Formats: sequence, C-alpha cells, structure tokens
Amino acid sequence: MFDTTLSAASDRDWDTGAVEDPVRIAIVGCGNYARSVSIPAMVAGTYATPTVAVSGAPDTRASLADEFGLTSIDYDAYEAGAATDEYDAVYVATPNRLHLPHVETAARHGKHVICEKPLEATVERAERLVAACADADVRLMTAYRMQTDPVVRRLREFVAGGGIGDFQRAVGDFTFPVLGGDAGPDQWRLDGHLAGGGALYDVGVYPLNTARFVAGDDPTAVSATTRSPDPAFDEVDQHVDFRVEFGGEDGWVGNFSASFSGHFNTELEFLGTDGRVAVRSAFEPGADREVTVETPDGTLELAEAGADETVAEFDYFAHAVATGADVEPDGADGLVDMRTLAAVQASAATGDRVEL
Amino acid sequence: MFDTTLSAASDRDWDTGAVEDPVRIAIVGCGNYARSVSIPAMVAGTYATPTVAVSGAPDTRASLADEFGLTSIDYDAYEAGAATDEYDAVYVATPNRLHLPHVETAARHGKHVICEKPLEATVERAERLVAACADADVRLMTAYRMQTDPVVRRLREFVAGGGIGDFQRAVGDFTFPVLGGDAGPDQWRLDGHLAGGGALYDVGVYPLNTARFVAGDDPTAVSATTRSPDPAFDEVDQHVDFRVEFGGEDGWVGNFSASFSGHFNTELEFLGTDGRVAVRSAFEPGADREVTVETPDGTLELAEAGADETVAEFDYFAHAVATGADVEPDGADGLVDMRTLAAVQASAATGDRVEL
Repeated sequence: MFDTTLSAASDRDWDTGAVEDPVRIAIVGCGNYARSVSIPAMVAGTYATPTVAVSGAPDTRASLADEFGLTSIDYDAYEAGAATDEYDAVYVATPNRLHLPHVETAARHGKHVICEKPLEATVERAERLVAACADADVRLMTAYRMQTDPVVRRLREFVAGGGIGDFQRAVGDFTFPVLGGDAGPDQWRLDGHLAGGGALYDVGVYPLNTARFVAGDDPTAVSATTRSPDPAFDEVDQHVDFRVEFGGEDGWVGNFSASFSGHFNTELEFLGTDGRVAVRSAFEPGADREVTVETPDGTLELAEAGADETVAEFDYFAHAVATGADVEPDGADGLVDMRTLAAVQASAATGDRVEL
Repeated sequence: MFDTTLSAASDRDWDTGAVEDPVRIAIVGCGNYARSVSIPAMVAGTYATPTVAVSGAPDTRASLADEFGLTSIDYDAYEAGAATDEYDAVYVATPNRLHLPHVETAARHGKHVICEKPLEATVERAERLVAACADADVRLMTAYRMQTDPVVRRLREFVAGGGIGDFQRAVGDFTFPVLGGDAGPDQWRLDGHLAGGGALYDVGVYPLNTARFVAGDDPTAVSATTRSPDPAFDEVDQHVDFRVEFGGEDGWVGNFSASFSGHFNTELEFLGTDGRVAVRSAFEPGADREVTVETPDGTLELAEAGADETVAEFDYFAHAVATGADVEPDGADGLVDMRTLAAVQASAATGDRVEL
C-alpha cells in the first residue's frame, strides 16, 4: 500500500547530509514569486542561503537588502562580475525570454544555475541555455519544484513499484487566475514575446512535467487547442487543453489543461490497470496535498499530506552542487518540456496531431 | 449554494403525478444489463411495468417468465406482432446494430420506444431509426439514464443558475473492465460490426452526453486518439481519449476518456470561472454519488448523494408516454452523440481535429 509515512527521512531520499557549508545563491530577477516564495524558502532551508539580489528596481534592491541582508546589485553590475565572490550559484527567475542572457552570464562567471521553468521562450534559446552551462561545466537545474515535493516523490515510488499496475491515463489541470488580487494586465506573463506562451508555459508545464516525473516517460505526440476570449490575453493562450501521448499502442495518455483565469484549481490523477491515485491542491505552492489512493486492497484518503516542496527544491539543488550528486530535473529534462510545449502550440495552430 | 435536499419531490421535477395506468413495456433484448438492472428498475418504479420479454434464447425466455411473470416470445413472434395487446411501448436493449430493425418493428406496431445508447452502430442507421419513429408518430427516448439521475439534475439546475460562473472545462472518465468477472471476450461489445465502436460507444458516451445535458451545449469540434493493445480488442477501441470543443473562443472544452479495461472508474468534473463541481462514482448504475462543490462561498462535500437513476429513467419515459410530455433525451439528442462519436473515430484515424 501507499507509504503514508511522509517523514523527514523519507521526504528527502536524496539527502546524504554531507553538506558542510551552505551554497550561497544570487537571485537574478526579484519578482513577486522570488520575493514571496523562493527567497523565504532558501532562508527556511538548510543547504542554500541567499546572499545576492540582482534587480533592475532600486526599491526592490533596497527592500531585499533591508529584509534579508542581501548584497543588492543591478543587471549591469551582475554582467560585469560584481560580488562574484559572494555567491556560488545563481537562481534565475526573470521573464522566460531573459533566462538565456542571465544564465550565459552565470556560466561565464563559473556559477552553477537553477533556472525557473520553462527554460526559455523558445526551444532554440533553451538549447543555447543548456549548451552554455555544459560548455562552462557548471550545473544546471530546471526549477521543477514538484520533483522535490515529498508527496510526489512517494507517489513516484508507489507507482514504480506497481502500486496501480500499468499506466493507462493521467489527468491534470492548473488554473491560475493570473489577473487575480492586485495583479493587473501589465505583467510579463501576458507578453507573448517575453513569455513565449501563456497558461501553457506558466502553469500547464506543471501537470506535464509532474506526470513525466512520476511515470518516468517522455511524450511521443501531442494534440491541443487554445482559446483566449479575454482581450487581456491577446498575445498568449488564456486557456489550453492538450493531450499528450506517451508511447503508442502499449503506452498511455495524459489529458492536461491550464488556464490563466477562472476558479483556482490544481489537480493531478493517474489511472492504472489496477488502481488510481488522485492529488488535489496538487501544484499549489507549499500547500497541504489531499491524496486519494485506490487499489484492489482498498481506498486510502490522506488529508494535509506534504511539506514545503520549495524549501526542498533549493536544498536539493544546493546539496547536488555541494556533493556533486546528479541533478534529476536537469537541462535535458527542461528541454523535453520545451519541445513538448512548442509542439502543443503547433498543434493548437493547425488542429493536427504533432509527433515528437 | 448547491441544493442538498435530494428529496423525492426535487428529484422528480418532471413528475406531474398524472399517470393513472402504468405503461406496459416489452423488453427487446434480454442481456445481462436488461435482466439485472432495467427490468428490476421497471418493477421498482411506479409508472412503467414490464409485461413482455423478447429473446432469442429459450432459457432466458423461461427464466424471465418464471421470475417476473413476463409473456416471453422470440424475435420472429415479435416481428409478426405477437402479444401487441400486452404492451404499450418497447425497450430496445439489443446490440447496437440491431436497434434499427427492432425499433422499426416497434414503430410498425405503433408502439413507443425507449432505445439504449448509443442509438445505433452508424450515424446513417441512427437517422433511419429516428425517422422510423417520426414517420409512425411514436415517441422515441434515448436511454440516457444520467439525465434522470437526481444528482445530475440538481447539478444542471445549479450551473444553469450560475453556480460556478461560466463554463471553462469539463473532465470525465468512464473505465469499465468489460472482461471482468465472468465476462469473456465472446460478447457483442467487442464485435466491431455489431457495436460500431468499443469503449467510446459503450461508456465514453456517458461523460459526453452528461456534460452536454448539464451544460446545455452541443459539440462543435473533436480531436481524439484510440489504442487497443490487448488483442481481445482488435475490432474496437480498448481506450479512447477525446477532446470535445463546445463553441469557439467563448466556448469551453471537455476532456473525456473511456476504457474497456483497467481499474473501474467513473468521474465527471466541471470547472468554471467561479467554481468547480466534481462527481465521483458519477456513472456507476444505482451508486451513491460523491459530490464536491467549490464556490467563492466555500466547499461542500456530499457523500452518498443520489437515488436510483434507472428507476427514474423508466418512470420518466412512461410518464411522458402517458401524459404527452416532451422527452428531453429524444432521438435528436441521441443523433448529436452519434455524429460526435463518428467524428471522434474519424479524428482518431487521422490525428486531425474534426469539426461538427
């Protein structure tokens, strides 16, 4: 049956404890997510510590210096190599199309990189990003926080052990009202050039990448449709529904969706020959997950399962940098998603199924 | 908020009580579903009563005469008009491709018809079936039992009243292990000619038709993929995943699926601009439904919701026949699904999106 012991030990199956000094991180791009989620997660964790903030906004630099004691510099200074003796690695959280130059700079400085998802705004730029890190021999992690989520890691173990039999199907949705709260339409996520795509790129990648991670399979074909009834989304997809084939006759299918408006919703489900696993609040940052596991042995309901996957994410990255361990959500992993997202866009444009 | 009073009165919003004599029904095709679900439902209900059984199997005729006191005749006798003074209407539950001749016979005898879903094995035959009833001026109901399910009817009211805002998306799955239990591969559901399709035709029609009923919208385009890894399903789809567009930019999308093997699963979910409704055990005959309703006002969980939708189905049909009330799941409703199923098959064959 599903392992319900989401203890610290089993949460961090990757943690050897062999990190002496925390890995010092420069945050490049200090938007709302970095300030409210990522930097606090580094502070809360064990192996990573934020030391430098790179921002183009004087107010942001001042507040980050004040609140977290960070050395705060602008982009020109970052490019020129300021404060390179104060950080070992770079966390890139800028708009997607700016990932490439900032990762190239990090690589030129010989710094390891954790880069937000999706890797870039186009496949070609993402490939150059990955190559820059490889050429400079620095590590690159794609910031897929669900891969360090304790519940998701237990799910992967469970299904790999045959917990629901063979995969038949996954279903996943991430609906994020990007214009909710104080957020207006003047943001890069609605800028087609900067973002590369809309709901698909920003949140649709969650069910896609998490399903890939849990199943251990990569897409072979996609089919999709998008729509943007609200003029605020005239440059990007407001809604996307995309079907992903993993293998042929003997494979399985993921029916995924994402939206930039509507009732907030995150869910992921796997249907197998012998069982079913469903996760509610599946992709909500730092949320308790609700897990349902159905097998021939019975049904298990877990409420309030989980821990802070973002704390684990930066600890995982820092641990790998410090110990030389493999990074699983690496550049190659990120490129698989980039190629899949591009195929989804191509399919939505023509209506045709696109093979990968 | 969602009306949780699933009382007899609100269950049967269609019931005027104005039926004096039960409508007498001949059951044409007495397979397992008719014997174990439909005939007992007629017996349990108020307005329909089974009186005649038509079967090609002497053993079945004998057992139905014995157990339910039915006048039991064979197909030749049915064709020839035997026992027509003992029934007012016909319930057709034969393999799909035999619906047309048996409905034509009923129409010729001037009998009203309730015909199992999908209406036939091809669109053209379904159109002839509908025309036969129209020409003979007898009523035709497509046997969509979910349309008389109390929970589904309450859901329709709730969303029509704006309970979750505008529709953005539906998700639905019906996985029915057709070879489970005592059932071997020697059954008409695996015969491509007799059935017209596999999981799509037999169970995929449930999320499709129920979503149409709840939303009050019809498909405008589909995209689908099918696969049949098990040689037992070489003539029909073992698995189908189909995306249905309802309208264009301002419309919504249903991501539906069905399988003839795997862990038994039935579920239906609606995502809106302002809320979400999810139903577990959504299509299981006679099952208690589990309903989750999320709105800005809060979340409601209903366990063991529902009543026997099949009892209501035959009462609804008999009530309409006796009182002259409109039948909502009529032949036209059934034809919309037939055309959609055919488009799904065409899309799966080519990979292309197919407009309706």
